[in-house]
Amino acid sequence: MGTAPTQCPPGISANLHAKFDNRIEFSCSNFPSTLNISKLNCHPNSKGLVNRICSLPDIDDLFWEKVPTPILDVVENPMHLKNLTIKELKLLADEIRSELSSIMSRTQRSFKASLAAVELTVALHYVFHAPVDKILWDAGEQTYAHKILTGRRFLMPTLRQKNGLSGFTSQTESEYDPFGAGHGCNSISAGLGMAVARDIKGKRECVVTVISNGTTMAGQVYEAMSNAGYLDSNLVVILNDSCHSLHPKIEEGPKTSINALSSTLSRLQSSKSFRKFREAAKVVTKRIGRGMHELAAKVDEYARGMMGPLGSTLFEELGLYYIGPVDGHNIEDLICVLQEVASLDSMGPVLVHVITEENQGSEHDQKRETEEKQQEGLSLNGTRSFSYGEHCRTYSDCLVEALVLEAEKDKDIVVVHAGMEMDSSLQLFQERFSDRFFDVGMAEQHAVTFSAGLSCGGLKPFCIIPSTFLQRAYDQVVHDVDRQRIPVRFVITSAGLVGSDGALQCGAFDITFMSCLPNMIVMAPSDEDELMHMVATAAQIDDQPVCFRYPRGALVRTDYPICSGTALEIGKGKVLVEGKDVALLGYGAMVQNCLKAQTLLSKLGIDVTVADARFCKPLDIKLLRQLCNSHAILITVEEGSVGGFGSHVAQFIALDGQLDGRLKWRPIVLPDNYIEHASPKEQLALAGLTGHHIAAATLSLLGRTREALLLMC
Amino acid sequence: MGTAPTQCPPGISANLHAKFDNRIEFSCSNFPSTLNISKLNCHPNSKGLVNRICSLPDIDDLFWEKVPTPILDVVENPMHLKNLTIKELKLLADEIRSELSSIMSRTQRSFKASLAAVELTVALHYVFHAPVDKILWDAGEQTYAHKILTGRRFLMPTLRQKNGLSGFTSQTESEYDPFGAGHGCNSISAGLGMAVARDIKGKRECVVTVISNGTTMAGQVYEAMSNAGYLDSNLVVILNDSCHSLHPKIEEGPKTSINALSSTLSRLQSSKSFRKFREAAKVVTKRIGRGMHELAAKVDEYARGMMGPLGSTLFEELGLYYIGPVDGHNIEDLICVLQEVASLDSMGPVLVHVITEENQGSEHDQKRETEEKQQEGLSLNGTRSFSYGEHCRTYSDCLVEALVLEAEKDKDIVVVHAGMEMDSSLQLFQERFSDRFFDVGMAEQHAVTFSAGLSCGGLKPFCIIPSTFLQRAYDQVVHDVDRQRIPVRFVITSAGLVGSDGALQCGAFDITFMSCLPNMIVMAPSDEDELMHMVATAAQIDDQPVCFRYPRGALVRTDYPICSGTALEIGKGKVLVEGKDVALLGYGAMVQNCLKAQTLLSKLGIDVTVADARFCKPLDIKLLRQLCNSHAILITVEEGSVGGFGSHVAQFIALDGQLDGRLKWRPIVLPDNYIEHASPKEQLALAGLTGHHIAAATLSLLGRTREALLLMC
Repeated sequence: MGTAPTQCPPGISANLHAKFDNRIEFSCSNFPSTLNISKLNCHPNSKGLVNRICSLPDIDDLFWEKVPTPILDVVENPMHLKNLTIKELKLLADEIRSELSSIMSRTQRSFKASLAAVELTVALHYVFHAPVDKILWDAGEQTYAHKILTGRRFLMPTLRQKNGLSGFTSQTESEYDPFGAGHGCNSISAGLGMAVARDIKGKRECVVTVISNGTTMAGQVYEAMSNAGYLDSNLVVILNDSCHSLHPKIEEGPKTSINALSSTLSRLQSSKSFRKFREAAKVVTKRIGRGMHELAAKVDEYARGMMGPLGSTLFEELGLYYIGPVDGHNIEDLICVLQEVASLDSMGPVLVHVITEENQGSEHDQKRETEEKQQEGLSLNGTRSFSYGEHCRTYSDCLVEALVLEAEKDKDIVVVHAGMEMDSSLQLFQERFSDRFFDVGMAEQHAVTFSAGLSCGGLKPFCIIPSTFLQRAYDQVVHDVDRQRIPVRFVITSAGLVGSDGALQCGAFDITFMSCLPNMIVMAPSDEDELMHMVATAAQIDDQPVCFRYPRGALVRTDYPICSGTALEIGKGKVLVEGKDVALLGYGAMVQNCLKAQTLLSKLGIDVTVADARFCKPLDIKLLRQLCNSHAILITVEEGSVGGFGSHVAQFIALDGQLDGRLKWRPIVLPDNYIEHASPKEQLALAGLTGHHIAAATLSLLGRTREALLLMC
Repeated sequence: MGTAPTQCPPGISANLHAKFDNRIEFSCSNFPSTLNISKLNCHPNSKGLVNRICSLPDIDDLFWEKVPTPILDVVENPMHLKNLTIKELKLLADEIRSELSSIMSRTQRSFKASLAAVELTVALHYVFHAPVDKILWDAGEQTYAHKILTGRRFLMPTLRQKNGLSGFTSQTESEYDPFGAGHGCNSISAGLGMAVARDIKGKRECVVTVISNGTTMAGQVYEAMSNAGYLDSNLVVILNDSCHSLHPKIEEGPKTSINALSSTLSRLQSSKSFRKFREAAKVVTKRIGRGMHELAAKVDEYARGMMGPLGSTLFEELGLYYIGPVDGHNIEDLICVLQEVASLDSMGPVLVHVITEENQGSEHDQKRETEEKQQEGLSLNGTRSFSYGEHCRTYSDCLVEALVLEAEKDKDIVVVHAGMEMDSSLQLFQERFSDRFFDVGMAEQHAVTFSAGLSCGGLKPFCIIPSTFLQRAYDQVVHDVDRQRIPVRFVITSAGLVGSDGALQCGAFDITFMSCLPNMIVMAPSDEDELMHMVATAAQIDDQPVCFRYPRGALVRTDYPICSGTALEIGKGKVLVEGKDVALLGYGAMVQNCLKAQTLLSKLGIDVTVADARFCKPLDIKLLRQLCNSHAILITVEEGSVGGFGSHVAQFIALDGQLDGRLKWRPIVLPDNYIEHASPKEQLALAGLTGHHIAAATLSLLGRTREALLLMC
């Protein structure tokens, strides 16, 4: 790629950090102090860079001190790319990479998926005409270069912050985002819909969808490709392949080599003459009859398949015309292939296989970033969305420790994990019990039924899936587990609000959609001790399914002792504080906020009972009756949607006659809207679920509205 | 195949219908009267049959008048197959086919999927040792021969009836059913789980899973195959391919021909020598290095791929060793291949591609059956589960008529359908607007996001999915539609109880899991007029998603006029009967049962208000307040689980203070258990949702318990 940073002396990765105030900061991984820019200019190779910049039209304005991103500065939207030369496009890509690295270092987030897709993004916007042409992505992490090129550059520092840019694509954010992505694997389906709509409406725009390795594990992608092959609408699917999971087996070996041959081959295959030859051959063989047609297709396939990597024919057999592999960092090749693809008429769906390197041009940055993150106790995965401070221990850490303790005692315990990315804390279990740990990636449906199978085979599976991704396996939970009363232990992570991941990965609905299932035991720990107990409880339950949820983030206490939990009595809650005026019945992490409210209220002379429900199903009927009988007010609190814990309480107390006159019941749940990205604290406030909110609601109900208002000031 | 029925003179398909009272009935499609058995004996070809039967050990007991299924009669469990000769196994298959045809004609259900799998079932049970070896199916309709061979033969006439055999496989029904199947596409995942558990436990049994064409559309199958290829456990996957959907495009052409070549090829590929050669080649090439390894694999693939049908390499690339195609009606071939597969050690997952004909040996039966069904106004699909009497019009008929009327007015209206099988009534729309109709089969996830894409492209999609299968696309509903507020119109069919399809396809949870979504409008029609209105309403709503649910079965009135509906005011219910003592607030089809209860109660002097809520979301707040203010008792009634309509009502009236003293609220919902197969009427009674139950609940609440008890007698 030959850009300034990579031309630095070995061991020194130089990055030009463009600050928005046009001051220059130049940082080096080995020498974190600011270097004199003259040092770079002195380097013999730096001449190449200057030479290239000299070829730009507005060279007069270029000064090292002032403008480190000369081309990017003039690109306000993708239209401005059209007149750039290939050389300039390459420079532009380098500038975007520098800018992303700079933001990355400041925000302490990993942008490696976006860094890998820089050239691809530039090529896409050079060849296609967004927003008329639709470019869809299915992983938010890949889209930051796209955001920079589509008018959102100066908002990038607000990424994932309250009222700032979303970490994902969003229709409401930009006309260049034709579809929202956050859960992966949806872009082909959505793109196909747009392509079919275009055909019906008689329009001619292009639809391009970009998928990543991770999404090739997800079933929906196969459903979509198969349907695309059948409907035969014009659609370009780009497989942005960083060689991690297309063929999990191959991971162990070296990555697919990108060489001159594949480059030539890609050009050959996407060239009009090749395509025309193929079309002509198809027509001829169709006339001859099916047998011959099939043979011709096979020969064709063979001609390419023998050269291409494993996998090419898979796409062909699903009905997509395969082109590739293409070097995803060679802008010239990318543009050549994409232009050919864009110019073809009635070609049906095409898959362009693009190979990218996640650490392209930023190995040293990555290393440094990793070290920094580790020092700060942050997760290494890119979607780890908010910091809870240094060295904080999370619920996930606690879960894994509890699982390890249980797995040591019981050799039948196995762990299945599914979801977009695995929490790094699970590595502890994976390393300890590698043959009893299964990470299936974005294949949640399979994960659940696979767990059911493991259970039928006599093992004790814990199936760990984030709340929002469990939605993708809901039918499997109902049909393959709950209906058959198979003991699978669901660990629902990232339950409730998820900070900077916003509404897209908010786990708002799990209490509702799990508690309605007849055979499911549904519980939620209020703190780390309870979590340990619930892991022990789940390990012990072996005649029906069970689930428990916990939120992202830090534990209540940081210095808890690691000792095995004790199995709880099923359907048994507990009273934490005894009072008489008002009963606060919390579920899960909200018990902590009930305790905060109790502290506030006791200062105002209100005698509050706080109970930890522990179980949403089965409910602790005795506890509920006791709370109803001895209090005038019962407030249920949960970090979940309507239809969950509060609704189950209402169902029981209504049928029990407890609501017929003596009791005021108020449910506090998540509001009936999506809460966008913000800090966890800001989100809780927006949701009205802080201790202050609970206390204020109580005061209002007691007629002390003025005090309630004061509390919220 | 050469069995008695096919040896009859052309045009006469004779079937021996074995009655359980051992009387013989002999029916002919061209001559529906009973024939004298001597006619068959006179036929020159019938000698062959007698000869074959002569070869059986217990020939002395065989008399035409008494025993039409001599071999089947001695097979009480699969163990009894082991000593039979290939010839006898063929005869056994014919006998099973006859028996199935006989039951089919009596129960008026289509068993064609099971008829197609007869030889495969016999071969599986001959080669493998169930119940130690696990044989998993993923479509209930294929398993009737399996049920006959595994000790359930004499219960077959109770199929799908109350307390009778389930239409699906069920762990609780037989030890020969290692996993329950009803939604399709789960068997590989479950089987892989069992295989991995077996490996961990150090056992050695075989795990065999049978998948069908339909399930190759479902994403989960790809997730499972890919994971199976990665984990590399021994697992046999049988693709029971009736050539309908593996390659939808190919449907138009002739079916893949099964010839001597493919038969030879199958034997070759599964033979030990071939396998060993391949293993040896793998080891060598692995040593040489990856490039060569890949090439060798490709050559291998090519050797088979050129001969095999399209699709073989798809499985290979997902990591399964492909064998086939095998003629699914040639027991000898099947046994040969399966024995080779069973005898191989550490082979990893294998896919055996078996080609079957759904009308095998029963073309005339099928025709006759079809005619009979048409006369009776029944659906032609096999899973149509209960009859509502002759020529009854269903909610689905009404929906389609409404859709046609709307689509005539608005050319942007398109229909997407997903689910295991399409209701035949949808064909009307498909024929009328073929370019605006998309049936994607068992690809619910794709269907939902595809609809979102169509909507983004400016069309107005109606996405029709049965309640229970919408569970499979829940995340797409949340993430791709609701969160982005994209106007997709969900038509939720088979909502609530589903008669003989039992718990497996019961649509109990949709109100709960749809109503918690912030942007979704959730409604349910109480009768056919309301359905027409709701279709018109959904067509008109173009700024947010909307869904409505209706049950299976007959309409309230049969002679309703077909005229276009009128868009309803959003969130507006209506009072049907004005009363003052008790308010019954029904949701969807349950409004009819509320009206029945009102009739019963009015006879007892109780003045009942009946209201049709129409909307679960947004609720009709004005109506709710009015009902609360003017009644002492409010009863909400829905055919859905807890967490749905009643819970939303409770949430509102609690926060509105309506529950603080004056009002008794009682929610009537589906009970918190799965209701097994029975007639719709029986199921409603089991659920406590009949008019009598609602009336009795009201009486109890009024303290008139004796009358309540009398009402239920």
